[in-house]
Amino acid sequence: MVAKFDVTSDTATQPTEQMFDVMKSASRGDDVFSTDESVHELEKFMADLMGHEAALFGASGTMTNQLGLRCWLLHPPHSVLCDHRAHVHLHECGGIAYHSQAAVTPVIPTNGAYLTEEDVRANISTDVLVGAPTKVISLENTLNGTIFPIEEIRRISDLARARGVKMHLDGARLFEASQATGVNMAEYGKCFDSISICLSKGVGAPIGSVLVSDRKTIAHARHLRKLMGGGWRQAGMLAKAALHCLHTIVPTMPATHKLAKRLADGLVGIGFKLLLPCQTNMIFVDFSPALVSDLATPLLKDYDIKISNNPGSSVCRIVLHYQIPSSVVDQILEVAAKTAKDKQITRQIDSAICSTASSASSSVIDLSGAYPSL
Amino acid sequence: MVAKFDVTSDTATQPTEQMFDVMKSASRGDDVFSTDESVHELEKFMADLMGHEAALFGASGTMTNQLGLRCWLLHPPHSVLCDHRAHVHLHECGGIAYHSQAAVTPVIPTNGAYLTEEDVRANISTDVLVGAPTKVISLENTLNGTIFPIEEIRRISDLARARGVKMHLDGARLFEASQATGVNMAEYGKCFDSISICLSKGVGAPIGSVLVSDRKTIAHARHLRKLMGGGWRQAGMLAKAALHCLHTIVPTMPATHKLAKRLADGLVGIGFKLLLPCQTNMIFVDFSPALVSDLATPLLKDYDIKISNNPGSSVCRIVLHYQIPSSVVDQILEVAAKTAKDKQITRQIDSAICSTASSASSSVIDLSGAYPSL
Amino acid sequence: MVAKFDVTSDTATQPTEQMFDVMKSASRGDDVFSTDESVHELEKFMADLMGHEAALFGASGTMTNQLGLRCWLLHPPHSVLCDHRAHVHLHECGGIAYHSQAAVTPVIPTNGAYLTEEDVRANISTDVLVGAPTKVISLENTLNGTIFPIEEIRRISDLARARGVKMHLDGARLFEASQATGVNMAEYGKCFDSISICLSKGVGAPIGSVLVSDRKTIAHARHLRKLMGGGWRQAGMLAKAALHCLHTIVPTMPATHKLAKRLADGLVGIGFKLLLPCQTNMIFVDFSPALVSDLATPLLKDYDIKISNNPGSSVCRIVLHYQIPSSVVDQILEVAAKTAKDKQITRQIDSAICSTASSASSSVIDLSGAYPSL
Amino acid sequence: MVAKFDVTSDTATQPTEQMFDVMKSASRGDDVFSTDESVHELEKFMADLMGHEAALFGASGTMTNQLGLRCWLLHPPHSVLCDHRAHVHLHECGGIAYHSQAAVTPVIPTNGAYLTEEDVRANISTDVLVGAPTKVISLENTLNGTIFPIEEIRRISDLARARGVKMHLDGARLFEASQATGVNMAEYGKCFDSISICLSKGVGAPIGSVLVSDRKTIAHARHLRKLMGGGWRQAGMLAKAALHCLHTIVPTMPATHKLAKRLADGLVGIGFKLLLPCQTNMIFVDFSPALVSDLATPLLKDYDIKISNNPGSSVCRIVLHYQIPSSVVDQILEVAAKTAKDKQITRQIDSAICSTASSASSSVIDLSGAYPSL
Repeated sequence: MVAKFDVTSDTATQPTEQMFDVMKSASRGDDVFSTDESVHELEKFMADLMGHEAALFGASGTMTNQLGLRCWLLHPPHSVLCDHRAHVHLHECGGIAYHSQAAVTPVIPTNGAYLTEEDVRANISTDVLVGAPTKVISLENTLNGTIFPIEEIRRISDLARARGVKMHLDGARLFEASQATGVNMAEYGKCFDSISICLSKGVGAPIGSVLVSDRKTIAHARHLRKLMGGGWRQAGMLAKAALHCLHTIVPTMPATHKLAKRLADGLVGIGFKLLLPCQTNMIFVDFSPALVSDLATPLLKDYDIKISNNPGSSVCRIVLHYQIPSSVVDQILEVAAKTAKDKQITRQIDSAICSTASSASSSVIDLSGAYPSL
Repeated sequence: MVAKFDVTSDTATQPTEQMFDVMKSASRGDDVFSTDESVHELEKFMADLMGHEAALFGASGTMTNQLGLRCWLLHPPHSVLCDHRAHVHLHECGGIAYHSQAAVTPVIPTNGAYLTEEDVRANISTDVLVGAPTKVISLENTLNGTIFPIEEIRRISDLARARGVKMHLDGARLFEASQATGVNMAEYGKCFDSISICLSKGVGAPIGSVLVSDRKTIAHARHLRKLMGGGWRQAGMLAKAALHCLHTIVPTMPATHKLAKRLADGLVGIGFKLLLPCQTNMIFVDFSPALVSDLATPLLKDYDIKISNNPGSSVCRIVLHYQIPSSVVDQILEVAAKTAKDKQITRQIDSAICSTASSASSSVIDLSGAYPSL
Repeated sequence: MVAKFDVTSDTATQPTEQMFDVMKSASRGDDVFSTDESVHELEKFMADLMGHEAALFGASGTMTNQLGLRCWLLHPPHSVLCDHRAHVHLHECGGIAYHSQAAVTPVIPTNGAYLTEEDVRANISTDVLVGAPTKVISLENTLNGTIFPIEEIRRISDLARARGVKMHLDGARLFEASQATGVNMAEYGKCFDSISICLSKGVGAPIGSVLVSDRKTIAHARHLRKLMGGGWRQAGMLAKAALHCLHTIVPTMPATHKLAKRLADGLVGIGFKLLLPCQTNMIFVDFSPALVSDLATPLLKDYDIKISNNPGSSVCRIVLHYQIPSSVVDQILEVAAKTAKDKQITRQIDSAICSTASSASSSVIDLSGAYPSL
Repeated sequence: MVAKFDVTSDTATQPTEQMFDVMKSASRGDDVFSTDESVHELEKFMADLMGHEAALFGASGTMTNQLGLRCWLLHPPHSVLCDHRAHVHLHECGGIAYHSQAAVTPVIPTNGAYLTEEDVRANISTDVLVGAPTKVISLENTLNGTIFPIEEIRRISDLARARGVKMHLDGARLFEASQATGVNMAEYGKCFDSISICLSKGVGAPIGSVLVSDRKTIAHARHLRKLMGGGWRQAGMLAKAALHCLHTIVPTMPATHKLAKRLADGLVGIGFKLLLPCQTNMIFVDFSPALVSDLATPLLKDYDIKISNNPGSSVCRIVLHYQIPSSVVDQILEVAAKTAKDKQITRQIDSAICSTASSASSSVIDLSGAYPSL
C-alpha cells in the first residue's frame, strides 16, 4: 500500500485527476521522430525559461544528467569534478563511468556547505600524463535542499570558461532554489552549458526530466537518448502533464518552504538537532536510531504518514511537497514531541551545527547513509 | 502534422480515448522503488504469458533488448551472434558496444530468410586468444515481418545450451508471430533466457516494452535500468494502458495480417515485386525510386496516408496495424495501380524472389537502406 | 619447444644475437615521460617515413590500432567501417567495442579481394536516428597477404575526406605492400589520418608497433596509451632493436616474396589449390584436413618445421619471413608432393579460384577459421 | 639528458650492462601464445612467491592493476573501494571507469595513515537501488612509501570475504614493505584474490609488472591483456632481466631504506618537516616553494642529481633506489642545509606531524599535487 502522506521524497508526488484530463488534450505523435507537438511545447518552454536554445524530454533525472555529461566527455582520459555528495556521483549507479568512461573527482566543500571557486580551482586536473583531466564541472542546486549561491556559481563558471571546462547543472530541484531566492531560472541558466531539470520531484509531474542546452548538443543528445534506451513513442501526454505542473505547482513552492521551516523550527524547539539548514523543502534531523524506528512505525503510520526509516541510522530526511498539507506537519511535531518526552530526550541543540533552521552548517557531516535513494 | 493513417511503422499507433479512461484507474506508486501495483500487474502478466519467473517494464524496445543482453555479458572479450539484419545490431545505435563493451558477429542466413542451427554453429566463436567468444545468441521474431520457425529456434536453443551460450529474443513483434502461427507465447519463451517484447508497436500501447527472464536476472536488470536512466516514477498509467492493449488489440492481429496479405497480393497483381514474403503485418515492395516519391507526395497525402519515402531507394516498407482500416488498403492499391499505369510499369514479377505473397524469399536482399528507423 | 622454422606466422621472427648487441647501445630513459632518445629516434624515423608529424611506440599492433581508432571516436553513437575480414574487427578481441564503445560495419568486398570506393559509399552510415554513424574507415594493407591497390585507397580517402570521415590504416604489414609494389610508404601515408605499423611481424623486431599521425593526435594517444596500460619504462632497447630491423630486414622482403611465389607455384604444380593470390609473403592453400594433419605431424616436424594445423580445417596459411631459408621451401614442397602422391591427390586446379599464384581471387572465400591467431 | 642520479622516482632505475648479458640467455618464444620459457619461469617464480596458482607478465603496473580489477568487475552497477590517495584511483588515467565501467569509492583513512576495517565497513556499498555496489576492495602497499600493517590487511580481508567482495592488492612496491617488515610475500598474498607487483620500480627491471591470481583468472586476464593491447611477442628477454633483478636487487632494499632514513633524519635535523613517516624508500618533505625550485636548479643539478620540482608546491617527494649511492644523500643534505641557512629557515619541527622519521603521521595531508606521476 502506498501511504497517503509520503514525506520520504518529493518523487512521491502522485498524478491527479486533473492531470489525467489535461493528458487527454495532448498530441499523439511519435517522439522518437521528434514529431509530437506537446513534447515540442514542453521542450520550447523549458529552453526559453532557461535562456538556452533547445531542450530534450527524457524519462528521468538520471537520464538527462548522464546525457548532458556524456555530450561533453569526448575523449578519455577525462573526468568530472563535483561535490562529494552529488547525485551524479552517488545516486546514479556509477553512471559517469558506465556511460562516459570517465573518472569522478569528488570534492569536499571546505565551507561544509557548497563548493567555492577556490575548492574547484584546487581540484581541477590538467594532468595529461597519469591523470584524467577535468572536462566538466557538475554542480547541484539545490543539494540536500540547500541553496547554491548564485554569486559562487558565477565565479566557478568564470573559472571553468577560462579553463575550457564545461559547466553542467544537476538542477533536479532548481525550481526550489529559484522560488526560494527569487533568482530567475535564466540567471542560473547563463552559467551552464547544460542543465538537467527534473519534473517528477517537487514539480509534481508523474514522469520526466528535461535537458537544456544549445541546439547542436540537444540534437546529439536526442540520438544518444535513443542509444540509452530512452526513445519513447507517444510521450505527448507526459509532456502535457508536466506543462500543467510547471504552471500550477511550481508557484506553490514558497508555501511548501514555509511549511518546512515551521516543521524544522518545531523540531528544534522540541530539542532535536538539524544537520543541514532548512532552506527549501528538505529537513535533515538527527533522531536517535530507536526514535526513528518508533516514529516510522507505528506512530506516524496511524496518521498514514510514511517517513524515512533507515535501520541503524539516526539521521532522518523529511521532504515536503505540494501534496503534504499543514496538518501533516502538526502530526509529525505532535508525535515527535510525545516520543521525545517518553524517551526523555533532553539533548541540547548543538549551536555549532545549526542553531536556527535557516543558518548554514559549519562543518561537513556525512549523510551518505541517511537516504538510500533520491 | 501527424498523418491520420501512418503506414510507415506500427510504432505510429496512437493512444485512444478509451486508453485515457483506463489510465485513470491505474495505481500511482513510484516504480523506481517497484511499488506500483499496475506495473506489477503488467509484469506478472507478461512473465506468466512467457512461462518465465519475472518481468521488467521499460521505456523502449531498445532499452529492454540492451538490458537483456547486458545481463549476460559479464566479461570482455565477448560477443553477440545475430542475424546481419538484426535490430539489436543495426537499429539500436550501436548499443551492444556502448552498453556491454561487446563485439557483434552479424551472420548472413544461408537460406536467405532466417538463421539455422548450422549457420549458428559455423559462426559461434570460442577463440580465447585473439577473438571475442560468443556469449549470447540473439534472435529476432518476427524479423522484417517474417516468422522464425519454432523448430529452428528449438534447434538453435539446444545448441546454445550445450555450449553454455545464453539465448536472447528480440520479440518486439513476437505477438505477430504467435498470432500468425498459433504457437503459444510460452513455447517461444522456453527457448530463451531473456525476451524483450515491445508494447508500443503492433500491440498499440503508447509507451513501453517488457523484459522477461528469471527472478535474479530481472532484479539485476531493474538496477541496470536505473543506471541507463530508465527509472521512471508513476508509470502505473502506462502499464495499465499496455494491459488494456494486450487484452484488446493483440486479438485483432490476424485481421491485420489478412489485410496485409490482401495488400501484398494486390501489389503483386499490379506488377510490383515483393522483396520478402508477407507473413504478418509488413510488406516490402520494390517500386522505382521515382514511383516511391510520387506515391508519398502528393498522391497518398490526399488521403491523409503517410508512406515511407527514402530518397533514392526503390524499396518501400508498408506496415499495417489495428488503426489502419480496410479502406486505406483500397486507396493504396488504387493509387499504386494508377501510378503504375501512368508510368507504364510492365515489370514482370520475378518468380525467383517472391511469386506469391506468402512464399519464402530464396535470396538475400539488402534492405538495410529501406527503412531508416523502426 | 619452439620449432626452428616456424611458418605459422611472421610474428615468430626471433631476436638475433646482433640485435642484443644493438640493444646495448640504446639510451635508458623513461618512456612514460617520453624522455628516451632511442624511442624518439624510432618515432621520428617512422613519422618521417610516412610523411606525418609524429609517432608513438607501443607494445603491439592491437595497441596501436586501437589507439588510432580511439582518437577519432569521440561521441557515441558511432561506428567503424572495415573489410569483414579486418584484423581490427576479428582478431583484436572486440577491441573497438571495448575501447571506443563503437559499433563495427563489416563490409564484404564485392570484388572478393578488397573494398572499393563504391563498397564504402554504399555502407557509410549517416543515420542519426537509430544508427551509429560512420566516423572512421579502417583499411588493412596487406590483408591476408594481398595488396590493397593505391589507386583504390586514394578514391576511398577522397570520399572519406569529402564526408568528414577519418581514415585509419592497419598497416601491420604495410612494408610488405610497399616493397612488393614499389609504392613509397609516404604515398600510402598521405591517404590516412592515422597509421599503425607493426614492427614485430615481417620487420622482425622482438616487440613493438608504431602509431603515426599528427602531433596533437599523437600527444593524445600517448596519454591514452598510459590509460590502456601501455606506458612502459626503459623501452629504448626495444626501439633500438626495431630501428636495426627497419634498416636491415625490410630490404630483404622482396627475396622473401620471391621465395613465397616459388612455394605457391610449387604447390599449385603438385595439384593443390590456392585460396588467395600469393602477392607478398603469405600462402593460403587448400589441403584436405587429413593432409594438413599429416603434414604438420610428423612429416614436417622431422625437419623442425612448424606449420599451421587447425583440426578439421583444410585451409593452411603459410607465412614466410627472413628467417625461413630456401631449403625450408624445398622441404615443404618435397613433403607435400610425397603426401599428395601417397594419398593419390589428383584434384584439378580450380581455375575460377586461382590459376596462377599471382592472379586475383574472383570469389569471396571464408577463411575465418583458417588461422586462429595472427 | 637523463640525470645520473634521479631521485624523483624509483621508476628511473636503468638497465645495467649485466642485465643485457642476462637478456641474451632468454628464450625467444612468442608470449602471445604463452610459449616463451623465460616468461613462464618469471610467472612461476612470482606465483610461487605469492602462494598463488598462476601469474601473468604485463607491460606496466597500470596494466596489471587494471587487468586484476577488470577480472572481478562483471556486472554494472558496481564499484571499487580504495584509499583516496590510491594509484588505481588517481594515477591510472581514470582506468577503472574506462576499462570496467565501474565507479570508485575513495575513502579518507580516519587515522590519517591507512584504511582500517572500520573505514572499509562504513563505506562498502550494498545499495542495489541507486548505488553502485562494492565488488572489489583495492589496497595499496606501500602507499607513498608507508607500510600497510599486515594485521589490518587481514581484518579487511576477513570482512571482504564475509561480504563476498574481492580483494585486490596494488603491490607496486610490495617488496619494499616485505623487506622492511620481514612479513613474507606469501603472507600478504593470502589476503588477496589478485595482486599486481611492479618490477620496474624499486625492483629495477627495465620494463614489466606481474599479475598474480588463481589459474582461471589468469587465463582470463591473458585474453584480456590481448584486448588491452598488451600482447607482446618475444618478451623472454624482459622476463629474464626481471628475474635477475628479483634475485639481485630486492635483497638490497634494506640498505636503501637505511639510507632513506638517514636522509629523512638529516632533513629533520636541519629543520624541515616530514609530511609522512619515512618507512621504506620514500621521503615527503615540506620545503618552501622557492626552496624546492632552488634545490632543483641549479644547486643539485651541479651534482647531476634530479629532484622533483613542482611549480608552486612546497612538497617534495624524494625516492631512493639501489642506483642512488650514499654520496648523493650527503650532497642533498649539504645543499639543503646550505639553502636553509641562506634563506634563514628556522621553522620548528611540527611534532604533531612527524617528530621522528619513523613515527606515523597523525593527520591527513593532501599530497595530491606533490607528485604528478608515479
